Amino acid sequence: TAESIRELVLDPALDLSPETETLLQLAARADHVDQVIRPALERGAVMLCDRYVDSSLIYQGVGRGLTVDAVETVNDWAVQGLMPDATFILYIDYEEGLRRKEKQTGGSLDRLEQAEEAFHRRVNEGYLMLARRYPERIRLIDAARSVEEIHADIMAEVNRLLAEEYRV
Amino acid sequence: TAESIRELVLDPALDLSPETETLLQLAARADHVDQVIRPALERGAVMLCDRYVDSSLIYQGVGRGLTVDAVETVNDWAVQGLMPDATFILYIDYEEGLRRKEKQTGGSLDRLEQAEEAFHRRVNEGYLMLARRYPERIRLIDAARSVEEIHADIMAEVNRLLAEEYRV
Repeated sequence: TAESIRELVLDPALDLSPETETLLQLAARADHVDQVIRPALERGAVMLCDRYVDSSLIYQGVGRGLTVDAVETVNDWAVQGLMPDATFILYIDYEEGLRRKEKQTGGSLDRLEQAEEAFHRRVNEGYLMLARRYPERIRLIDAARSVEEIHADIMAEVNRLLAEEYRV
Repeated sequence: TAESIRELVLDPALDLSPETETLLQLAARADHVDQVIRPALERGAVMLCDRYVDSSLIYQGVGRGLTVDAVETVNDWAVQGLMPDATFILYIDYEEGLRRKEKQTGGSLDRLEQAEEAFHRRVNEGYLMLARRYPERIRLIDAARSVEEIHADIMAEVNRLLAEEYRV
């Protein structure tokens, strides 16, 4: 279900209003929480998510100008208050991010990626703002460094969290 | 876009949580408001909608147990506060409604229609509750009567509203 919804969101042929785009993203997330994340947590698993609520707060709240507070209210309802223990934001500046993305995709960008430079700069600023807003939850990782350095940073923090949670 | 989303909502093969179903309904509605309703109102048209926000308040808020207040908050955000001047609820009791629906469809019911009797009874009660909650906006129409009587009732009210609005 979540994948069918995401296909709609990323279809370059559709002209979605900011509200429609947000509600579709949140529907996909609500389905993911209901079908995958909650069942996994209930059997005691550690869940890793590539993108979660912060993506909506930033892409729709900041990028599309709907405000972080409004999107957060709807989002919180969609996931029924389920938030991660820790969030890692791999931060990189706009120019370097674009270079890497174009190299990775060979120049073929989807609808969200095609949006203009000003949008992506607002998104970047938004993530920095979120990291300041939720310092307990969010760890800002400098992604301009090597894969090895980034990995070491994240693993150190993950091990600290697991030790806290499970007394490993 | 709205139709693609509604196909997902009504697909009997999908197991949607109440939150996912609600967000998809609201995404379809947000798209409809953005693409059809607002542009029409801006050029001065009178808009008639078959189902609007009350359907979500009742089917998801009451029927799926998410509460009317919670669904109303998200819904209000989805339509950016755009509410109709008047809403007609054509009310009929559960048994007669079911007889008519089965006759009309030849027995083939979609996922929402397949839901159990208790759900439909809660939905019926919910519409009566909404009519009491918004007496200024909602007119409860007794739909157990003939098409001609129902039509006459609605037209009398519509003409009164148009006279008020346009001094026809």
